[in-house]
Amino acid sequence: MPEQLLLPTHGDQNIFKLGQIKLKGARNEEVKVKVHFSGINFADILMRQGLYPDAPAFPFTPGYEFSGEIIEVGATVKNFKIGDKVFGGCFFGGYSSELNVPANQVRRLADNWTLEDGASLPVSFLTAYVTLFDLARIKNGDKILIDCITGSLGGMCIELLKGIDCDIIGLTSSKSKIQLMLNRGIETYTHDQFYNNKSLNNFDFILNSQGGGTITAHYNRLGPAGRIVVVGASSAVAKGKRSLLKAIKMLFNMPKFKPVQLMNDNKGVMGINALRLFEMPEFLFERLDLAENFDLKFNVDKIFDAKDVADAHAYIEDRKSKGKVLLKWN
Amino acid sequence: MPEQLLLPTHGDQNIFKLGQIKLKGARNEEVKVKVHFSGINFADILMRQGLYPDAPAFPFTPGYEFSGEIIEVGATVKNFKIGDKVFGGCFFGGYSSELNVPANQVRRLADNWTLEDGASLPVSFLTAYVTLFDLARIKNGDKILIDCITGSLGGMCIELLKGIDCDIIGLTSSKSKIQLMLNRGIETYTHDQFYNNKSLNNFDFILNSQGGGTITAHYNRLGPAGRIVVVGASSAVAKGKRSLLKAIKMLFNMPKFKPVQLMNDNKGVMGINALRLFEMPEFLFERLDLAENFDLKFNVDKIFDAKDVADAHAYIEDRKSKGKVLLKWN
Repeated sequence: MPEQLLLPTHGDQNIFKLGQIKLKGARNEEVKVKVHFSGINFADILMRQGLYPDAPAFPFTPGYEFSGEIIEVGATVKNFKIGDKVFGGCFFGGYSSELNVPANQVRRLADNWTLEDGASLPVSFLTAYVTLFDLARIKNGDKILIDCITGSLGGMCIELLKGIDCDIIGLTSSKSKIQLMLNRGIETYTHDQFYNNKSLNNFDFILNSQGGGTITAHYNRLGPAGRIVVVGASSAVAKGKRSLLKAIKMLFNMPKFKPVQLMNDNKGVMGINALRLFEMPEFLFERLDLAENFDLKFNVDKIFDAKDVADAHAYIEDRKSKGKVLLKWN
Repeated sequence: MPEQLLLPTHGDQNIFKLGQIKLKGARNEEVKVKVHFSGINFADILMRQGLYPDAPAFPFTPGYEFSGEIIEVGATVKNFKIGDKVFGGCFFGGYSSELNVPANQVRRLADNWTLEDGASLPVSFLTAYVTLFDLARIKNGDKILIDCITGSLGGMCIELLKGIDCDIIGLTSSKSKIQLMLNRGIETYTHDQFYNNKSLNNFDFILNSQGGGTITAHYNRLGPAGRIVVVGASSAVAKGKRSLLKAIKMLFNMPKFKPVQLMNDNKGVMGINALRLFEMPEFLFERLDLAENFDLKFNVDKIFDAKDVADAHAYIEDRKSKGKVLLKWN
């Protein structure tokens, strides 16, 4: 019988319950996927901690992305057949060994992609793509700062920017990861080094994933006509159980931007929550088709058995991850 | 002797004093220009009304752009000679029959441009260029709203977007100007028609020049990953003398944008005050070189003798202008 990881309420990493589910047949426009891998995202951590406003009411099953094999095809679905190896996105429920999902949210794996690659792709690819090419529209000559360079989003940005002649500077919370990035040819600093080095400025684009007061600090480092895209709020996340104090502090430090200030500074502030874009599948999933056009080098860091989801979440919360973290279903 | 239009203090259109000035010789890096035409900008109206925070202390001479003939060349200036027909930008002081200006803020007129064209170019070209190509980075397929389509900025945007396959919808305050725009092939509505027609939405980019509450109204019409650029605050301007009440109302209605809201909406807000960019001439004036690359159709609406500056300002404040308004020096 299919299984699912349920969050009965918010809590620490051990709050998940692994249980069996009854799954209906695929509806007309759906396919049923036997999931091999489920991707874990930072938003999943936030919603487990009860800090993610968009999460459904407890109990629910998190998860936005998966890969696997099609085991049933809805009556009106023409472009898939049983046995196809696929990956895709779903609006919650991805931490499941089987799921029904609209066929237009699913794509066939490219020839040289593994199922692990596929499960790691949707959220970080779509977030990076919309950030870089819809909102910021990076072009040759841009000077770019990415404040989460060692994470899966940062890694995806590096991949998507390969064909563009731009300067990328990366930030990381961990000094030990700097050499890793230098080996990839990315000039990288710790956040502290960056804040202490005022000469790192004049950016055309900054990707801010830390939120809170860092938004202002980054905004001040933009050059003329510079733009910042805020992608998340990782500074709200404490280890283990939620820290309301830390979350409140982050929100309190979050600046507000007045248009008059933006005018006087000749700058821009944008935001992305790709998960909200799941509510606009026609916009989001047409971009998933573009993934094949990039020569993507995937960066799956670690795979945990689905039953070990607590360890997987801890691994991310302890800032140990150097790439994508997946759950594996047997 | 050279003459200059001075604002002794804020006031209605008749406050200007036309007076003679003594002008020093051009410094090493400067050229002296005998001005034929001075461009009038909306910011000039605001500063005459005492509503422009960046204006110098009274008394001062407004004016950001001019065209004319070089009559003296500084010792280190290599690329100009006496008699060259030029246009350029200056940080205030443009309402003058002669001026000294750094040579790097001046450009030779293109072969097919008149002096009238040249004086109409700098502010609207630089504002439009930075807005469209540095901040918003318009590309094929974009759906665009320009809320000042009949003004000189709107007209310049139409010119700069000619080579891009995008849909432009224009707004105007005057019903009588709609046919004018339709003749140019631009779908155009009055502001009222727009606000009443909710189906005019899903824009990738909106140029907002009205400020105040219209920013929120426009923001709500953006599609996924849509961006708005706020370029001015024309709704602050009453006819004649300044209306502090109207200005305060406009500022009061000006929204503030929180990054969390921008994230949830997947949108961006940017601002431009090209006049502030005059403080960064290396950024701004390298863009002036690009003007020749566009096949610009200039739109000089009306030329007033410099002594009739009161009529010129009134013409703009009464929303009669259908393009650029210039002052002519004899």
